[in-house]
Amino acid sequence: MPEVLSAEAPASTNPHAPFSLAFDVLMNRAFIRLCTGSAGLRPPRTVQVFAERGGRRVKEKVAKMLELKKKLGEEQKPGKFVIKCPKGTRDYGPKEMAVREAVFGTIIESFKRHGAETIDTPVFELRDVLLSKYGEEGGKLVYNLEDQGGELLSMRYDLTVPFARYLAMNKISNIKRYHIAKVYRRDQPVMTRGRYREFYQCDFDIAGEYEKMLPEAECLKIVDEVLNKLDVGNFYIKVNHRVILDAMMSVSGVPKQQFKTVCSSIDKLDKEPWEKVEKELIDEKGLTKEVTQQLRRFVLFREEATDLDDIQTLDKMMEIEALRTNADFKKGTEELKVLFNFLSLYGVTSARFEPSLARGLDYYTGVIYEAVVEPSEEVRKTIAEGAAKENQDSGEASIEGQGLPTGVGSVAAGGRYDELVKGFSGKKDSVPCCGVSFGIERLFAIREAQLKCKDVPMRTVATEVYVASAQKNLLEERMKLCRSLWDSGVRTEMAYKRNPKLLDQIQNCEAKQIPLMLIVGERELQEGVVKLRYIKTREEQDIPLATLVESIREALLKA
Amino acid sequence: MPEVLSAEAPASTNPHAPFSLAFDVLMNRAFIRLCTGSAGLRPPRTVQVFAERGGRRVKEKVAKMLELKKKLGEEQKPGKFVIKCPKGTRDYGPKEMAVREAVFGTIIESFKRHGAETIDTPVFELRDVLLSKYGEEGGKLVYNLEDQGGELLSMRYDLTVPFARYLAMNKISNIKRYHIAKVYRRDQPVMTRGRYREFYQCDFDIAGEYEKMLPEAECLKIVDEVLNKLDVGNFYIKVNHRVILDAMMSVSGVPKQQFKTVCSSIDKLDKEPWEKVEKELIDEKGLTKEVTQQLRRFVLFREEATDLDDIQTLDKMMEIEALRTNADFKKGTEELKVLFNFLSLYGVTSARFEPSLARGLDYYTGVIYEAVVEPSEEVRKTIAEGAAKENQDSGEASIEGQGLPTGVGSVAAGGRYDELVKGFSGKKDSVPCCGVSFGIERLFAIREAQLKCKDVPMRTVATEVYVASAQKNLLEERMKLCRSLWDSGVRTEMAYKRNPKLLDQIQNCEAKQIPLMLIVGERELQEGVVKLRYIKTREEQDIPLATLVESIREALLKA
Repeated sequence: MPEVLSAEAPASTNPHAPFSLAFDVLMNRAFIRLCTGSAGLRPPRTVQVFAERGGRRVKEKVAKMLELKKKLGEEQKPGKFVIKCPKGTRDYGPKEMAVREAVFGTIIESFKRHGAETIDTPVFELRDVLLSKYGEEGGKLVYNLEDQGGELLSMRYDLTVPFARYLAMNKISNIKRYHIAKVYRRDQPVMTRGRYREFYQCDFDIAGEYEKMLPEAECLKIVDEVLNKLDVGNFYIKVNHRVILDAMMSVSGVPKQQFKTVCSSIDKLDKEPWEKVEKELIDEKGLTKEVTQQLRRFVLFREEATDLDDIQTLDKMMEIEALRTNADFKKGTEELKVLFNFLSLYGVTSARFEPSLARGLDYYTGVIYEAVVEPSEEVRKTIAEGAAKENQDSGEASIEGQGLPTGVGSVAAGGRYDELVKGFSGKKDSVPCCGVSFGIERLFAIREAQLKCKDVPMRTVATEVYVASAQKNLLEERMKLCRSLWDSGVRTEMAYKRNPKLLDQIQNCEAKQIPLMLIVGERELQEGVVKLRYIKTREEQDIPLATLVESIREALLKA
Repeated sequence: MPEVLSAEAPASTNPHAPFSLAFDVLMNRAFIRLCTGSAGLRPPRTVQVFAERGGRRVKEKVAKMLELKKKLGEEQKPGKFVIKCPKGTRDYGPKEMAVREAVFGTIIESFKRHGAETIDTPVFELRDVLLSKYGEEGGKLVYNLEDQGGELLSMRYDLTVPFARYLAMNKISNIKRYHIAKVYRRDQPVMTRGRYREFYQCDFDIAGEYEKMLPEAECLKIVDEVLNKLDVGNFYIKVNHRVILDAMMSVSGVPKQQFKTVCSSIDKLDKEPWEKVEKELIDEKGLTKEVTQQLRRFVLFREEATDLDDIQTLDKMMEIEALRTNADFKKGTEELKVLFNFLSLYGVTSARFEPSLARGLDYYTGVIYEAVVEPSEEVRKTIAEGAAKENQDSGEASIEGQGLPTGVGSVAAGGRYDELVKGFSGKKDSVPCCGVSFGIERLFAIREAQLKCKDVPMRTVATEVYVASAQKNLLEERMKLCRSLWDSGVRTEMAYKRNPKLLDQIQNCEAKQIPLMLIVGERELQEGVVKLRYIKTREEQDIPLATLVESIREALLKA
């Protein structure tokens, strides 16, 4: 991804002046005068990119960029540094938090519905613990902590390796747990696709020696439940088996030591056409055309037989002699058939056998799966617009960010990993595990966009009653009312001013969608009552102070 | 704090062999033969400590230690590394999580009751953002991320500086928000006191230009509410004012440039007697006896006048000529009097003016406060025992860890910080702020110990129904029942075995405190019913499959 106007400074430059970096890295002196009329100021890299395209668009972009710089320059006194979030991270304001908590709520309820406990582990681990499991690929993306004396630590890249460490350390051989926490990857962030450097994972895993395919079926049931409840649009769950992948490669003539690298090419088939993947397999991975042709037949098998259901497809593949006589293929196929039978008992219709699914991580040993969401055109457009704006605001706009994403991609994934704990405990007994992880940032993005499209107002506070006054000098009376309500468990707010205006108080109440307002007045106090106003209907009535809490409770049921 | 058998390796030694470190650092060769009978193995540092004391206790301790080492050695194959949490961090298992979620629930409900929104910020920030605010003291304890190219990042030390950054960056001038998240300090961990390197903070802050003392009063109301609801034992809230501290020091003759360092000595008065603090002030801070005597009179003023309430104490201090004529003292006193008046309107009786309270951090500008809990002797003992065991398990036992803590100390603290946002935004307008932060690990420790003392069984799952079978070959029937219940939102579990034993299923149900069990049987299925068992009463009845969900809902109300 080309980087444009990144606020990120390489280690060698002054991190206090990220904008001077964006300007310094540019060489295109031909554009300097065009842009700035000054030889002293160099244009940002964006200018260079657009320079190659030429035209009026360039000038417009440059003018915008310079205005932005000027604005920033004004706020940035000499010696000051830029106030921003680290690259690839973001703040969640109250509105985003409201969406996030609703999504979490749905997921946690599903995890609890299936009897899961929850655990938590530290955000960093001993570096050796992580690196021994993430392999070379994952290891590259791990954030290391500075060696400040003491242990060498790194931040977790997922929740699965910490889970395996927890099981091994506590000698736990069976548990059904969920874990919702942030993980960290020094990846190239792509905000439009919901790819951040700090993001939440919501993991559900079943550890223990159990009836074949039963844990897998429950994980898929949960994915199906959550995505249905969240109402994120059309979705389906691709299902494959690690040993079926191995069998297909082996039968096609891929050398065993190349299984992993070939898998990572195949994994790209959801984004790229076969021709491109095949070119990579031949040019970069050194496979022959004969081998790739054979492989193509297997991984794209469903294209050949679109009218077959999952079990029929597996049976059809079994008719191929080379596969039928392969022990791996036989084992994988039998397991998947059991799984699909279980899924129909559980009423899961979104799962689909997909021989091209080849998840990257090393540790899977059995069934693997990945849920893909296809939000409506309107929602996708809204996500793209929001992300583009966000990128622009944070000075991290990118060429890619300006396009529309074709889909948000995978929102949940997982599989069976029977050997992960074994590596830690060093014992002959392993703890077989199977789980699923929800990619929450993408689900947030979809929900946020849906709400934006529907123009649903989000409540960010839970306040039930707003205590106001119509006259001056009633601060203490308002305080006493708040106290009574708080002490009775009623969620209550009031203005923090001594003499707030009634109109301001009503507006505040409406903005926060607080359903009830109590209006204190001299006359009412003397009569031992207070005025209750229903914000929606603007209806008002006097209620006796003696039965304040009871009256409020009743009113809340009506409001 | 002396470190004994720490599993932490200094940077120069092999981090894969923490135990060899503990052995290597020891020099006391006289004990080698006594401990091991081998000159090749050196005893751990503990041996050295006890060696100075001599006696039988040493031998016992050494034998224990060696046994531990042997055990660990067996599990640790050559080339393997120790599986543990990083120093000063811990896992939360399902039981601890149940306590934690209950404590969070109480705190969040209180924050919501007072109309707060919530936000979240990244766990790391640009290093400059943090270090510009934490000052030298705090800066020393900050975890830095390795420079892997790109921005220089550090992990947050609290949630207050990220909050100020958030306000400045988004130009927010008023908000009432809470933020519950982990913070990081490279401090010397003391598990017995609930001091960890990774711990949660629960912050509530009110930002905005408001009526004096109103936000402070609400923060203290919240502390009072939370500690009462959590039922953590006796507690009180110390209250002081930054400018009163300044006035007392100034009037006593402390030079202005020493205010900060003198404050940090005074801050120790909750743990150390005056004589020790005075010695530090004279020997290390260079004050004269005359100055410290004057200071003593002020900071320990309440010892002189134990029968006075807060406002009377302030009035009595005002009678001292030097204080009365000090503008700072006058301002602070007036504000505290307003605050105590507000607190009585809010029914907060736990707050107490305490002139010796001197919170460390630089950024406070007005009222400061700190809540102190005094749990029962039984609870304190349980905490100490639990912590000692935990330290031992993690190989981090310490001399201090073996004693009983005299109290768990501060569980919530905060104050007014009007200048923090100003420093970020670089504007003349600041955003006045006031807030409170709960020290959650200590509250967890107290709640855990209370539950242990009362022997209250904790539920770690929320499952309502367990689907069992009394006979073989009913797996599919159990699955169908689970599906019906899940699809109706009933929290349901079943055994993951094909043919589980009924007794195992009932035991599992009882262990997890699941209230209802459905027992599927051939006979019942033929009759269109299923057996419902109430786990507590062991009562059983047949319920029709046709109205399964309704019957379960009814039964749950009774169970």
